[in-house]
Amino acid sequence: MKIPAIAISRLSVYARHLARLKGKGTEIISSGRLADMCGVNPAQIRKDLGYFGDFGVRGVGYYVQELLFEIRKILGSDQQWRLGLVGVGNLGLALLKHREFTNNGYTFVAVFDKRAKKIGIEINRLKVQPLEAINYAVEKKGMEIGVIAVKPVLAQEVADILIRAGIHGILNFSPVQIECPMHVSIENVDFSIKLEKLCYKIKSQRF
Amino acid sequence: MKIPAIAISRLSVYARHLARLKGKGTEIISSGRLADMCGVNPAQIRKDLGYFGDFGVRGVGYYVQELLFEIRKILGSDQQWRLGLVGVGNLGLALLKHREFTNNGYTFVAVFDKRAKKIGIEINRLKVQPLEAINYAVEKKGMEIGVIAVKPVLAQEVADILIRAGIHGILNFSPVQIECPMHVSIENVDFSIKLEKLCYKIKSQRF
Repeated sequence: MKIPAIAISRLSVYARHLARLKGKGTEIISSGRLADMCGVNPAQIRKDLGYFGDFGVRGVGYYVQELLFEIRKILGSDQQWRLGLVGVGNLGLALLKHREFTNNGYTFVAVFDKRAKKIGIEINRLKVQPLEAINYAVEKKGMEIGVIAVKPVLAQEVADILIRAGIHGILNFSPVQIECPMHVSIENVDFSIKLEKLCYKIKSQRF
Repeated sequence: MKIPAIAISRLSVYARHLARLKGKGTEIISSGRLADMCGVNPAQIRKDLGYFGDFGVRGVGYYVQELLFEIRKILGSDQQWRLGLVGVGNLGLALLKHREFTNNGYTFVAVFDKRAKKIGIEINRLKVQPLEAINYAVEKKGMEIGVIAVKPVLAQEVADILIRAGIHGILNFSPVQIECPMHVSIENVDFSIKLEKLCYKIKSQRF
């Protein structure tokens, strides 16, 4: 069964809100309230979860902790994921410290840069290494996701090195389209699509 | 007529690919090829564009330059947008230099930080100002979008100041949910949703 990518994104959103509820000590949430929080309707939640099983209790709603546990299992965010960062410019440094990467199941196990002047610098107890060290990190440190935060002109070259080294997935912050074989998963974080959407909303508000 | 947010995001993607085609000198593209490039099917493109008018020529496809022009007009990315950045940490500095913000119709007109030690530093010919200067920037410099790149704990406070100053929209990079009145548009750039989606894809590939 093919599960739409957008359903997976929504599961992330549900998990976010469930984690917040759990933090506040909420044990049960009605499907209507959870839907409101997530900006969807209850049928949408039911449908998205329905791809994976039967959750929720009719007339009660969802058990917060249980549903969060199940969604994390579905998403794989209950596991540990080993990340390698390529590019320690401002963006790379911001990502290393960003809460989303330091919380949860993500660990940076290695940091790389192409620039000789960056090699050897220690950031978050990791020494910046040259791109030639990527192979070793994949093979010996189990690095499975490469985070690309280099200049656009270098992004494909870096991706090729990661792919040859046997990486499983790439999170690309560089505003270019990276060519990638089918067996390597890729996600692009694209600021400009959000910015254009925002401008469109502002424009629509005006008229 | 209510246009789904996801259709707007797809228009951004179409525009991206059309701009690339235009750069390569392509004048006409078949709907099938454009759809392939964008990872959708031709009917989807037709439907998304259909909200705004009748584009494309049957049996021919789309005129690249013309369609790009129309989509930019729809999105408002043919206009100039004046941005203000709040937070000049690593992420903020990365955004100031990021190609997506320096290309196209976006201009940073002011930069702010709460930390006294940052005030007065000059970045990209803009002096870092205290948060108190936000009002002036909105009123006198026409700053209409606030880009939030502060620590999570400060994000709502900064948003409140921007909203009181009369900002039209907020692009939020802080991993918190910001409360915002209806008349102010907001978009969140959320790395972790992309990361979770990537992990899910990797996990699905394995089995």
